Amino acid sequence: MADVILVLNAGSSSIKFSAFDVERDELALVTRGQVEGLFDSPHFIAYDANGKKTGEHAWGEGTRLEHADAIAHLGAFLRGHGAGHRLIGVGHRVVHGGAHFTKPVLTNDEIVAELDKLTPLAPLHQPHNLKPIRIIAERNPAMPQVACFDTAFHATQDPLAQAFALPESITKNGVRRYGFHGLSYEYIAGALPQIAPDAARGRTVVAHLGNGASLCAMHAGKSIATTMGFTAVDGLMMGTRCGNLDPGVMLYMLDELGMSARDIEDLLYRGSGLLGVSGISGDMRALLASSDERAQFAIDLYVYRIARELGSMAAALQGLDAVVFTAGIGEHAAEVRRRVCEQAQWWGIEFDARANDGNGPRISTAASRVSAWVIPTNEELMIARHTLELIDSTRA
Amino acid sequence: MADVILVLNAGSSSIKFSAFDVERDELALVTRGQVEGLFDSPHFIAYDANGKKTGEHAWGEGTRLEHADAIAHLGAFLRGHGAGHRLIGVGHRVVHGGAHFTKPVLTNDEIVAELDKLTPLAPLHQPHNLKPIRIIAERNPAMPQVACFDTAFHATQDPLAQAFALPESITKNGVRRYGFHGLSYEYIAGALPQIAPDAARGRTVVAHLGNGASLCAMHAGKSIATTMGFTAVDGLMMGTRCGNLDPGVMLYMLDELGMSARDIEDLLYRGSGLLGVSGISGDMRALLASSDERAQFAIDLYVYRIARELGSMAAALQGLDAVVFTAGIGEHAAEVRRRVCEQAQWWGIEFDARANDGNGPRISTAASRVSAWVIPTNEELMIARHTLELIDSTRA
Repeated sequence: MADVILVLNAGSSSIKFSAFDVERDELALVTRGQVEGLFDSPHFIAYDANGKKTGEHAWGEGTRLEHADAIAHLGAFLRGHGAGHRLIGVGHRVVHGGAHFTKPVLTNDEIVAELDKLTPLAPLHQPHNLKPIRIIAERNPAMPQVACFDTAFHATQDPLAQAFALPESITKNGVRRYGFHGLSYEYIAGALPQIAPDAARGRTVVAHLGNGASLCAMHAGKSIATTMGFTAVDGLMMGTRCGNLDPGVMLYMLDELGMSARDIEDLLYRGSGLLGVSGISGDMRALLASSDERAQFAIDLYVYRIARELGSMAAALQGLDAVVFTAGIGEHAAEVRRRVCEQAQWWGIEFDARANDGNGPRISTAASRVSAWVIPTNEELMIARHTLELIDSTRA
Repeated sequence: MADVILVLNAGSSSIKFSAFDVERDELALVTRGQVEGLFDSPHFIAYDANGKKTGEHAWGEGTRLEHADAIAHLGAFLRGHGAGHRLIGVGHRVVHGGAHFTKPVLTNDEIVAELDKLTPLAPLHQPHNLKPIRIIAERNPAMPQVACFDTAFHATQDPLAQAFALPESITKNGVRRYGFHGLSYEYIAGALPQIAPDAARGRTVVAHLGNGASLCAMHAGKSIATTMGFTAVDGLMMGTRCGNLDPGVMLYMLDELGMSARDIEDLLYRGSGLLGVSGISGDMRALLASSDERAQFAIDLYVYRIARELGSMAAALQGLDAVVFTAGIGEHAAEVRRRVCEQAQWWGIEFDARANDGNGPRISTAASRVSAWVIPTNEELMIARHTLELIDSTRA
């Protein structure tokens, strides 16, 4: 009977899941999918490891599905499709580990309560991330559950890289740069030794360019600095998020434009970035396909901001040996990679256009002083690995 | 009878002044000084070109002096000490020229009204900058007056360097990166060809490190990018200002700490930076003299932030040929220059410690691939030059 690990990534209105078979300490994807639109038109869909649809259900417009109901549906689906499988643990993506949780942790009521205290640091994500942990603990108290944090990978950073120039009256509340996308960066750091040993040992900037986007400066696989800060809205321009912004602009929005904190939050998280600048779409594919000059300006700004922050990351590393592209845009938008590498040519990147069109893995020439790579990320697998490891440690 | 140009820099509660003799198109400082503490304990002081005190007056605690009274006092002082001098024009430092005023301009009622419309972009400075122009125009309508803008030097920047990733609904109000310290950068750009011809032609980052602080990336003397943005609170850590800050921190201050826009403004402008982080002082000299570890951390963070932003500036320039230090800290804090150059050594700066202790001008070795310099700035002289030039152009 094969052991299975379930990985959950719960947001405000959706739960993404994947399940991995434990085969002699290797993890193989069995199924993945999601329940989305929980509060207005819930929709469940599941695929097998080859991307073939294996289940689907729609509750219809106007239905409200609680997280608990969604998890119950998912559980029933897994039991129905899991002949010969035994669930041995659940791993959860939790956005914030705060200053204390610097690695994955087996949860219990106390720990969930501790994590709940971090809600003010990530009010839009943390409570939803914690819901499934509570739901499963209530139904099945013996099931091992592991919380994996998006912030944890950056715990190795020097206090200087983490500090804002704010007084203690503010920083004592935990206001510092935490950084995010840590599970993605950890996965890449783990994959580098096999794919690009020099980049694994050296000063490497990883560009996680997905719906959210950030850069991580790594030295020998350890996080030295990152562009996201206290929240996931800082740093690079993203699909709908603004990234780096003069604090004076927010005072202007409050004072002169009469905007509320909620108006500003909505604007900076959901109305800015590629969508806001282009006025067309927050989806890079749509902008790349558009001939509208606002779409082109949005892409230009996206690339320019990466180039600028790449300089800041290299300064944190005091040099640059390699650049790695990952996540949706990083893995699939060859044109974006080409433009970034062109702007970064002066660092010593000799771009290999043909390899780039083939999505890598190496997209710089063999002679290139600074190498460039495309490496697909896998945050779910990273969570499954941590979960298995912590379960094993309790058995040992 | 010698012609004289008066330069005014008016803030909310102080007016700084200097006067320059026009001698065969050369400008020589005659006197400088200030009226400060206008609203609670006004104090006037004046020095000659050698720094010898030539006048002083105190109105006493609790007196309220309007800008007009202060200017009247200054006028009387200048007439009393200006035997053989004739005032031919007044130059004013005006913080904001907006998108339209990209060079100095002879003012009239219409132009002052236009500049007044920019007040929402710089509410703490613009109205005070404009007051003396209005006061002098009313008393002496024939006196030529010139407005010189802190933003103007950056007008050469590419739209990508000026853009925030915000939608048009916001940017149409003039929300973009303007940059400041432009008169200082313009002075340095003008001084470079004589002092450091290679830096004048090349890719040079100028570090204006005063009470406010910013970096400017110049190529062949033109501004390519700068760290200050829409307001003078962004970018580097300063004496009491925070610099770069995750916008999410401001939402946290509004939502979780219950701070108002005024509370936040006060904190970010007057309670952060060196003062906020050290809890001791916003004055670099005091921190350098302190053995308190918080003072040391504040200096470390100040230097670290410069090093990081230097990388971002070099990325904008696609390379780095020279670094120039100027303004109070840049000109006088050899220790800060040493630490910045150490962190920037990997760029190819070979630091010359002895030259640095002597305040330059060149503080890198002759063999250094990237050169480093100390060049005292002179914003007042820059304003006087612009003023003379525009007066001459009306006479021609």
